Amino acid sequence: MYRAPVADIAFTLKHVAGLRPALEAGVFGDLGEDLVDAVLEEAGRFATEEVAPLYQIGDETGAVLKDAAVTMPPGWKDLYRRWIEGGWNGLSGPEEFGGQALPNMLGVAALEMWNSAAMAFGLGPTLTMGAVEALHKHASDDLKAKYLAKLVSGEWMGTMNLTEPQAGSDLAALRSRAEPAGDGTYRIFGQKIFITYGEHDFTDNIVHLVLARLPDAPAGTRGISLFLVPKFLVGDDGALGARNDVFCSGIEHKLGIHASPTCTMIYGDGFGGTKPGAIGWLVGQENKGLACMFTMMNNARLAVGMQGVAVAEAAYQKALAYANERRQGKAADYTCEGMAPIVHHADVQRNLLTMKALTEIARSISYCCAHALDMAHAAEGDAACHWQDRANLLTPLAKAFSTDTGVDVASIGVQIHGGMGFIEETGAAAYYRDARIAPIYEGTNGIQAIDLVARKLPLGGGAHIHGYIDELKAVAAEIRTSNLPGFGRSADLLDRALADVVEATRFLQACTADGGMETALAGATPYLRLVSLAAGGAYLARGGLAGAEPRIALCRFFAENLLGETAALKDRVVGGADSLAAAARALVTA
Amino acid sequence: MYRAPVADIAFTLKHVAGLRPALEAGVFGDLGEDLVDAVLEEAGRFATEEVAPLYQIGDETGAVLKDAAVTMPPGWKDLYRRWIEGGWNGLSGPEEFGGQALPNMLGVAALEMWNSAAMAFGLGPTLTMGAVEALHKHASDDLKAKYLAKLVSGEWMGTMNLTEPQAGSDLAALRSRAEPAGDGTYRIFGQKIFITYGEHDFTDNIVHLVLARLPDAPAGTRGISLFLVPKFLVGDDGALGARNDVFCSGIEHKLGIHASPTCTMIYGDGFGGTKPGAIGWLVGQENKGLACMFTMMNNARLAVGMQGVAVAEAAYQKALAYANERRQGKAADYTCEGMAPIVHHADVQRNLLTMKALTEIARSISYCCAHALDMAHAAEGDAACHWQDRANLLTPLAKAFSTDTGVDVASIGVQIHGGMGFIEETGAAAYYRDARIAPIYEGTNGIQAIDLVARKLPLGGGAHIHGYIDELKAVAAEIRTSNLPGFGRSADLLDRALADVVEATRFLQACTADGGMETALAGATPYLRLVSLAAGGAYLARGGLAGAEPRIALCRFFAENLLGETAALKDRVVGGADSLAAAARALVTA
Repeated sequence: MYRAPVADIAFTLKHVAGLRPALEAGVFGDLGEDLVDAVLEEAGRFATEEVAPLYQIGDETGAVLKDAAVTMPPGWKDLYRRWIEGGWNGLSGPEEFGGQALPNMLGVAALEMWNSAAMAFGLGPTLTMGAVEALHKHASDDLKAKYLAKLVSGEWMGTMNLTEPQAGSDLAALRSRAEPAGDGTYRIFGQKIFITYGEHDFTDNIVHLVLARLPDAPAGTRGISLFLVPKFLVGDDGALGARNDVFCSGIEHKLGIHASPTCTMIYGDGFGGTKPGAIGWLVGQENKGLACMFTMMNNARLAVGMQGVAVAEAAYQKALAYANERRQGKAADYTCEGMAPIVHHADVQRNLLTMKALTEIARSISYCCAHALDMAHAAEGDAACHWQDRANLLTPLAKAFSTDTGVDVASIGVQIHGGMGFIEETGAAAYYRDARIAPIYEGTNGIQAIDLVARKLPLGGGAHIHGYIDELKAVAAEIRTSNLPGFGRSADLLDRALADVVEATRFLQACTADGGMETALAGATPYLRLVSLAAGGAYLARGGLAGAEPRIALCRFFAENLLGETAALKDRVVGGADSLAAAARALVTA
Repeated sequence: MYRAPVADIAFTLKHVAGLRPALEAGVFGDLGEDLVDAVLEEAGRFATEEVAPLYQIGDETGAVLKDAAVTMPPGWKDLYRRWIEGGWNGLSGPEEFGGQALPNMLGVAALEMWNSAAMAFGLGPTLTMGAVEALHKHASDDLKAKYLAKLVSGEWMGTMNLTEPQAGSDLAALRSRAEPAGDGTYRIFGQKIFITYGEHDFTDNIVHLVLARLPDAPAGTRGISLFLVPKFLVGDDGALGARNDVFCSGIEHKLGIHASPTCTMIYGDGFGGTKPGAIGWLVGQENKGLACMFTMMNNARLAVGMQGVAVAEAAYQKALAYANERRQGKAADYTCEGMAPIVHHADVQRNLLTMKALTEIARSISYCCAHALDMAHAAEGDAACHWQDRANLLTPLAKAFSTDTGVDVASIGVQIHGGMGFIEETGAAAYYRDARIAPIYEGTNGIQAIDLVARKLPLGGGAHIHGYIDELKAVAAEIRTSNLPGFGRSADLLDRALADVVEATRFLQACTADGGMETALAGATPYLRLVSLAAGGAYLARGGLAGAEPRIALCRFFAENLLGETAALKDRVVGGADSLAAAARALVTA
């Protein structure tokens, strides 16, 4: 079973992602490494001892809907209660509403651990945190006073209601309606689908944030407003009042994360015989709802990226344990009697090291993204701008590369288990099932790639990405200076990979500047992977330079075995679009 | 829902894999293209109209065990009856026992269609065909007379009992026992796991082929014998007699292929109060059981490869249909009103074309392998030897590359469906689940790669592989000669990929000849993919040269977008082993 890799996580935070220098520079006030270590240690203990043991029953039982009420798996409600009592929900929440306002870096590290232990459990509070952020930034003081403290503590949970059957990636097609009631409130009508934790028994109240259109709102995304719609109305004294006209009409039967209720939510249909219309309050300005959503979208995307890291880590641990236990055949370096543990076979080693390297890269990218958010928050002026650009640049990498890695690593994990991997009781298959949603939700990985090319490459007038590449190049130089033979050819290979990044970046920037957006979009997905791999090589090297022999060896393995993919990715970006367009004609059947 | 792509399959058989020249040369006697087309057409109709509609209920209901009896999903028993009445079980079976003895090429094409329609259905008869082959080659005339006709017709089904809890990839650890009863029969004792279709209600009798050890047999794989153990004893008149002492004690709860019962079989435990000891008959010679198994293993591996092709094809069809139907966002080349079908987005196109190219490559490799088997069967002397070597060379590619492709393509298929892909009712997730077993069973893909490097590269004194590469090089020359501009840079890129294959091959051959087997094994998996991609590029080109514009465009897309991976794979083979070994030390925890 999963054991939180607290030492690895702390190392990557401090030595790869920049936490130690930030602490030393006083970026986080008087926060010290002792407290950081204590928080990580305790989060790791909770994830390992309390969350992980309830994973399997969650997967097997799932969330169950009956009469518009959702029952969570046995033991989960109590787990959630212990979890909020531990103060984990408010870890990065605003202090004025009871949060601990600890750095994002700590928040994502803890999030990784909850999700490794049980992704369906870690997912729910992510939505609450998104609601907290949206309300904190955009809601009126009245709404804040009524809702924020309870959302920060976790006494209530929040949801995000965007998707409708015809409006997924393209929210312009959204149809839900909001009518002003004349008293400052609104009546909401419509159907929302794929609403994570839309209904459950964890908390007495659920605070829905809902995108809908006001009457006569402009068409498209400029006519969307954001509303707060509580499951139970809340009195001025904070007491729960009448049931609101919103209910869960169905939950999805999904491939994975069975314990996470994915709900169809019906607004304004006269639930329970009430007068139709869910009572809602406007958050932010009319017709600016999408902007409100976008402010929290970066964090949500990073949070989903952590799920990719998390599942990959859990799958790796399970496969490594099995490979050390299962014995089959002989191996050259195993001289004891009997069959060798399969970890001694080269092919199994290749699989395990691939899992480990990809997981560590995804973790590094994600933690660096959190670091940039923290730096942006602490800094002012140009520096704040620089770090926000960095966070914006790294977010699509953190989301897409990490979640692709979750799927790839979980799949290798099944393979290492052989026939046992295909048996559900083993648990390897559950990671393979859970992992598959993360590349899809919170903006598909295809959307992330488009975001990277169309919106992030132009940051800083196109200069920001090149500054980032230069930082990565400096790592290659550091390897060379170190003269550590364990790095093998890592420095040269990293330089070569970064040259691929430079060439592809220049090509895409020229395209987007020069009316070649179609060509650029055709190369977006390979480009995202190209940058991620090259950055990952630099991050592994950084870990090796600060760490011990195994980190150096992992860097070298990655450089000499996996990093070579960048050349093909670069070719795909700069030379693949024409043949793609030519062959794609045959795909259109209508 | 799946529609058998009969025209595509026929084209690949005839123009890529060599069926037309073989027919024209009279390799298959007076078999003509008309009959081939009619058989494919009718198999396609049966797969599309009869098998595919029962897929979903099979996945949802699964096989159910109660009191040692397995009930197949609703409608499946009747489906099997119609299927054997159609003569499909004996398509490639021996004529003297009622089979049609049609070429393997037709057999695998039909197998692809059954498996696309429902992999859990297509899988069962594969085991029967394996039993037919083993008995036909190795059993006594008495056993043949009693069992073969009914196995060829499908009235009875067969199973293969190899795996035990401690003996999976390494059969040397096998423990099941066989004791001579003194009357020419044996008593079998032991537990076998992961026995596909070990128990079911399709047929009145089930013929188990079981590996076990005789008393005083040598240790390891040289002390294993093969036995026939029927579920019901068979009288000299062919009538069913007493129940034998073998029963199914459990079926596995699996990630996918739910309708295929994966059984734990108990031999000789006194089932139903009988005197303990399952009655068995020796097949072939004592202690030569593994050799008997190996004769059929090539075909079984090719059959599993077809499952990879099959699931990939089904997943592709589903994703293509969805991409043409689902509308989101705007696209440059879509000028109609409203949102564009997502097939117009470049990233979706890249995904679909990747699925299509990989599927077609896997199909081509597999059909070429079947072609080589047919040619070996028809030829004599050196030619037979040459074609058998070719089949042996292509078998690990057909098994491993096709099944990896099944997983990769099914995963992309889920992605194209967005949120709907994660919902079980959509059906895309079921392919992702089913596909995952094929890289594992019938020799894991890691074992296939070892087989390729350790046993297939030395074929023909090491010359066979180079002859094969030369044939692929000739295709690049043909592209050049054709002067068809639609091929783009395909010829140059194929040449480059083949140069990678040559370099990696020479390196591995030098290793294996010179005590560097460990280094060679470390590169086995990337080498298998390297050869498969380069061969695939040539096969796509062959299809383009014989076909229409879309096949040329697909070849170009593959060459200019995906074939570039070969350079990194080659580097991994020739330069990756040292860093792998160095990093692997940290993996051993015991």
